[in-house]
Amino acid sequence: MIRAALVAASMMMVLPMVAQKQFTLEDLNFGGTNYRNMIPQNRSLRWWGDQLVRVAADTCWTVNLKNGKEKVFFTRAQVNKWMGGDTVRSLMGITFPYADQSLVALGTVGKVQMVDFKAKKQVWSQNRGEEQAAEWNKESRAVAFVKGDNLYVTDGAGQTRQLTTDGSRDIVYGQAVHRNEFGIMGGLFWNPAGTRLAFYRMDQSMVTDYPLIDVPEMDDTTRYIATPAPEKYPMAGQTSHKVTVGIYDLATGQTTYLQAGDPTDRYFTNIAWNPDGDMVYMMELNRDQNDCRLVSYDAATGRRIAELYRETHDKYVEPQTPIVFLPWDKNSFIMQSQKDGYNHLYLFTDGKQVKQLTRGNWVVMDMLGFDEKGHNIFFTANAENPIQKNVYRVNVDGGTMARVDEGGRGWHDAALSASGKWLIDSYQEPDVPRNIAIVNTTDGKAVRYFTAPDPWQGYTVPEYRCGSIKADDGVTDLYYRMVMPVGFDPNKKYPTVVYVYGGPHAHNVDARWHYCSRSWETYMAQRGYLLYIMDNRGSENRGRDFEQATFRQLGQVEMRDQMQGVNFLRTLQYVDTARIGVHGWSFGGFMTISLMTNYPDVFKVGVAGGPVIDWKWYEVMYGERYMDTPQTNPDGYKKTSLINKAADLKGRLQLIIGLNDPTVVPQHAYSFLKACIAAGTQPDFYVYPGQGHNMRGHQSVHLHERITRYFDDYLK
Amino acid sequence: MIRAALVAASMMMVLPMVAQKQFTLEDLNFGGTNYRNMIPQNRSLRWWGDQLVRVAADTCWTVNLKNGKEKVFFTRAQVNKWMGGDTVRSLMGITFPYADQSLVALGTVGKVQMVDFKAKKQVWSQNRGEEQAAEWNKESRAVAFVKGDNLYVTDGAGQTRQLTTDGSRDIVYGQAVHRNEFGIMGGLFWNPAGTRLAFYRMDQSMVTDYPLIDVPEMDDTTRYIATPAPEKYPMAGQTSHKVTVGIYDLATGQTTYLQAGDPTDRYFTNIAWNPDGDMVYMMELNRDQNDCRLVSYDAATGRRIAELYRETHDKYVEPQTPIVFLPWDKNSFIMQSQKDGYNHLYLFTDGKQVKQLTRGNWVVMDMLGFDEKGHNIFFTANAENPIQKNVYRVNVDGGTMARVDEGGRGWHDAALSASGKWLIDSYQEPDVPRNIAIVNTTDGKAVRYFTAPDPWQGYTVPEYRCGSIKADDGVTDLYYRMVMPVGFDPNKKYPTVVYVYGGPHAHNVDARWHYCSRSWETYMAQRGYLLYIMDNRGSENRGRDFEQATFRQLGQVEMRDQMQGVNFLRTLQYVDTARIGVHGWSFGGFMTISLMTNYPDVFKVGVAGGPVIDWKWYEVMYGERYMDTPQTNPDGYKKTSLINKAADLKGRLQLIIGLNDPTVVPQHAYSFLKACIAAGTQPDFYVYPGQGHNMRGHQSVHLHERITRYFDDYLK
Repeated sequence: MIRAALVAASMMMVLPMVAQKQFTLEDLNFGGTNYRNMIPQNRSLRWWGDQLVRVAADTCWTVNLKNGKEKVFFTRAQVNKWMGGDTVRSLMGITFPYADQSLVALGTVGKVQMVDFKAKKQVWSQNRGEEQAAEWNKESRAVAFVKGDNLYVTDGAGQTRQLTTDGSRDIVYGQAVHRNEFGIMGGLFWNPAGTRLAFYRMDQSMVTDYPLIDVPEMDDTTRYIATPAPEKYPMAGQTSHKVTVGIYDLATGQTTYLQAGDPTDRYFTNIAWNPDGDMVYMMELNRDQNDCRLVSYDAATGRRIAELYRETHDKYVEPQTPIVFLPWDKNSFIMQSQKDGYNHLYLFTDGKQVKQLTRGNWVVMDMLGFDEKGHNIFFTANAENPIQKNVYRVNVDGGTMARVDEGGRGWHDAALSASGKWLIDSYQEPDVPRNIAIVNTTDGKAVRYFTAPDPWQGYTVPEYRCGSIKADDGVTDLYYRMVMPVGFDPNKKYPTVVYVYGGPHAHNVDARWHYCSRSWETYMAQRGYLLYIMDNRGSENRGRDFEQATFRQLGQVEMRDQMQGVNFLRTLQYVDTARIGVHGWSFGGFMTISLMTNYPDVFKVGVAGGPVIDWKWYEVMYGERYMDTPQTNPDGYKKTSLINKAADLKGRLQLIIGLNDPTVVPQHAYSFLKACIAAGTQPDFYVYPGQGHNMRGHQSVHLHERITRYFDDYLK
Repeated sequence: MIRAALVAASMMMVLPMVAQKQFTLEDLNFGGTNYRNMIPQNRSLRWWGDQLVRVAADTCWTVNLKNGKEKVFFTRAQVNKWMGGDTVRSLMGITFPYADQSLVALGTVGKVQMVDFKAKKQVWSQNRGEEQAAEWNKESRAVAFVKGDNLYVTDGAGQTRQLTTDGSRDIVYGQAVHRNEFGIMGGLFWNPAGTRLAFYRMDQSMVTDYPLIDVPEMDDTTRYIATPAPEKYPMAGQTSHKVTVGIYDLATGQTTYLQAGDPTDRYFTNIAWNPDGDMVYMMELNRDQNDCRLVSYDAATGRRIAELYRETHDKYVEPQTPIVFLPWDKNSFIMQSQKDGYNHLYLFTDGKQVKQLTRGNWVVMDMLGFDEKGHNIFFTANAENPIQKNVYRVNVDGGTMARVDEGGRGWHDAALSASGKWLIDSYQEPDVPRNIAIVNTTDGKAVRYFTAPDPWQGYTVPEYRCGSIKADDGVTDLYYRMVMPVGFDPNKKYPTVVYVYGGPHAHNVDARWHYCSRSWETYMAQRGYLLYIMDNRGSENRGRDFEQATFRQLGQVEMRDQMQGVNFLRTLQYVDTARIGVHGWSFGGFMTISLMTNYPDVFKVGVAGGPVIDWKWYEVMYGERYMDTPQTNPDGYKKTSLINKAADLKGRLQLIIGLNDPTVVPQHAYSFLKACIAAGTQPDFYVYPGQGHNMRGHQSVHLHERITRYFDDYLK
């Protein structure tokens, strides 16, 4: 009997070890061969007016808004039959441009097409080539595009006109300018009717080139030798490009430029059209980024009409969203601003600010749209909790605000139907991989449409904790996430890795699945590490003052806050304080080296990816916003420069960059190595040839194997 | 009594540990702060006719040839007084151009001067600026120089004339061509009287640029951003440059080009003048490097006169030394060739080969000069032993040969006096740091002038062993050096590092001090490693077939030979075969990665510096000599390419390069990293920004600390 019991006990011990699967980086890392199976399932959804449609590669379904039931709408085979000659390879890219027409827009090789799925035939098609940028307008069906650096428009009838001839690497048309800062994501802006096109023109002939290098592919037999791949890169304090805004009128065939004055050292952003399509609005910011004006222009003449709004601040103003007109009142628009300390919505009527629509110590994140009938605006915000994102509506007339998502917890993304009556609410909570609900915005009732299964079923999943500590100011709450080592035993001491980003416009900890843990953390937890991640002052979603605490001394306040985190870790008996590592990328690479060299006795091992080393080598727009110029803030630049810290390196530090990084150019890392060589310190270094600021695809798996190995070698 | 004895014993044990000093890399490494004190002392000597002169910064001495006794000749203070205005900062650069005149040539800021040390006054001076190249002729006192890419001549009277105007990065005048192969070290060649100048002109406009990058110095406040530093780099199988040879006549002021025919895919090298200075000779080699001709030209007209000699070989012919005319017979010259299998001297009279002057299974290394009276040629050769270098004379008339150095052992460098009657013999032996003897070449008697003290007195010096094993062919002797761990105990097992170069034109093991051990080996021995270094087939000084065994498959025979060395190591019980590492630079970097990937279970750790990865990315001249072109030898290129071996990497391998390496361009390392990333293998990597193919100055100390640490981390 005793013997039998022993056997049973040992079987008990063996069984869970056999049953539980171990994660690999191919499972957990973006680009890994099994990654797609390991992330929570999702549904690809479109609105066709107020009809919800789910799309997949070969089929699409209508979704019943009352009960979430799906019915086959049409299949790829059917669409291809309806089109006659051309073949669409997947339905994933389809859209339903018109709420009131049975048309689906899709792309085939070299073409865009529209198919009437009721009439079962193709009703429109337009040729498309390889373009540097393109923007289609559904009303006029005209497309504006950039090819060979010049700008073209093909009208709805298929007539193509070339708008510019001097496009080049120096003169850039119709593309994002100002290095994608200020919310800029493109350079082509149709008016609502698609009859006039606003476009960016950027003269960057006066901007220095950063000499990036392309290493040829291994199978390139025609050119063995590496080639220059110069990148126009305006560095802080140096000469920057000049941007103007052109207006092309399809009816007249004429182009007019907005009469905005000398573009030297100015930023033109957040371009918007009035509903009638005869006025253009933009935000105009000075190079010092502390004086911002909303200005309107006559689209026909380019004449400046009026300055509607001006915002100044002794640190900086950062306009990020264009104004949006009310669908029911073409004389009123919504503007976003954090002038009261938090990003909120403001109503303007007849060009004048009428009232503040939202208010509170929380931020409006995204405007989703309108309910034209009820005069509501829908938006996301973190009004429940600094680490949540929920969906709200606010009534423009009465100002009442209500939450409209399912459950009120977690992190919600939403898409509004055409009328604003329905909302798709796709969300995660710390223990919810993904739910999708259909919300009736009128009565707030939610129907659960989709509940994703736990993709990590059968694996040993570590424990994810979340909490807050006080910042170095003793007042501000900072949120952290901890990933506990698999098989956590509070009486053991664990090597601990602080993952850090720390810069503006990003945060790490939120109320998503596993508190938004990066899956590499889980991999490390499986290997016996404790992971700690905290959003310091300077990071996003906490309001203006929280972010601007870092002004003119990037990294300093951030480090002090991160050290508060380390002090907290020191209070935990299971943290091995002799084995604390740090890892981060980009701004987080800067933070990693800053921490390694400012607290050389605290951090034993660090891995810094794509690190900024000296802000004077970073680009004008982002760099000067936070640091002013090297000329006006020499002390700040000097204090934060890691060149001056090279001699203080003590632990093991690996720098990793992409050889073709156009964002944090390789000069940063090289100069730090030079300084370390001169100082007699020994960082390690690795480079991904052909890669940019982040490693793409499967190279990310290689990268994280590399990062993991470094901690295994020196921290474990 | 017992107690007293114990105290004495423990003192005995402590004393040697206190007394013996430990080496640091600052002591042992080139560029280290104490390096100069740790290398064997030397004497800087000049011949003034048959008078020996020792020079130092502030003083020079005459040396008595009979007894080596020194007497102050003159001081720097005296010279500066004699010159009047200008100041020479050190006497180390002085020469005595004329055997029969009391003149010393020296350089001051912006000038070259001559001082008569008997008349005690300056007798001649010429201005000099910053030049890309310069060559002075002592007879006419004319100087040819290159400035701003163009060629100039200043005659002895100080008259300057510009010879060319189209010099540029594309059109290169008066500098080394063919990437310094074929013994080329410069591009300006005066005739003996200094009345005519031969010079190279290279058109490299058709050669691709390799895009190297200069990272600005940290204190550069005017230009923050990195700059392109393109290097004209003709890769194997690709379009190469075109070289022609011009002759400028000082008397007529006219330039004539040698009528050598179409320069496409041809090498012109070993330019020489006849004693009368009216004929030019050069070696002309085809691009395939298997057909070489010695051709003479009329210097006045450029007309081709005659082909005097032709050498072909089915592998390659490699001319490396210009012909040298006999001082006593202006119709006779000496040519060097390894056409009988070893480099030897051949006498030509009236343009025809008359006889072979030296013969045997050993090689002539350097021709030192002549004894005009006795009709002897002096030269160095390894006739005693493949790893020695001794000094010999051979009689041109009778052919008798005799050794003339002191002792007949070791490695001898020598300088002949003007008449050839005296020889300075500076040498090392495995246990001799440096001796300098004065040899009377007539009777062979040697007087010891200088005996360097052991610079490592007081340090614990490891044991240096030397021996030979059989090559992979079972026949050929290969010489190795072993540096035993400090405190060697044959019953222990030691981590062992194979240092390797392995390429042509170099060798590692010779009969110099400590068998020519690189001082890093001693540092490693002090840290408990055993070092093993062996010259495989393909390396220098062993004759043509020994070198050419590697033809069209660089690395293959070399690896097999190195593995013979590893098999030998395996027979030594004190070698830990589980801890074998490998390290090499340049060709040795190529060998290191070749060995790591072809024998992944043998080598646990490797450090590869400036490694060739694929010979198709190496330069035309060197690459095609050994590998032919990628077009004609695709199998050889494929087999030796390390791109195809990236997946086989198992152990820890660190690649290290100079970011500005113009010899093995960074593309090699980058492409290997790319291949490893694609294959999922994990080499390490480091780069020295601003450094070329080798790390200069104190950066070499940093480098060797890095290399050492890598073995400490993973092999120890």
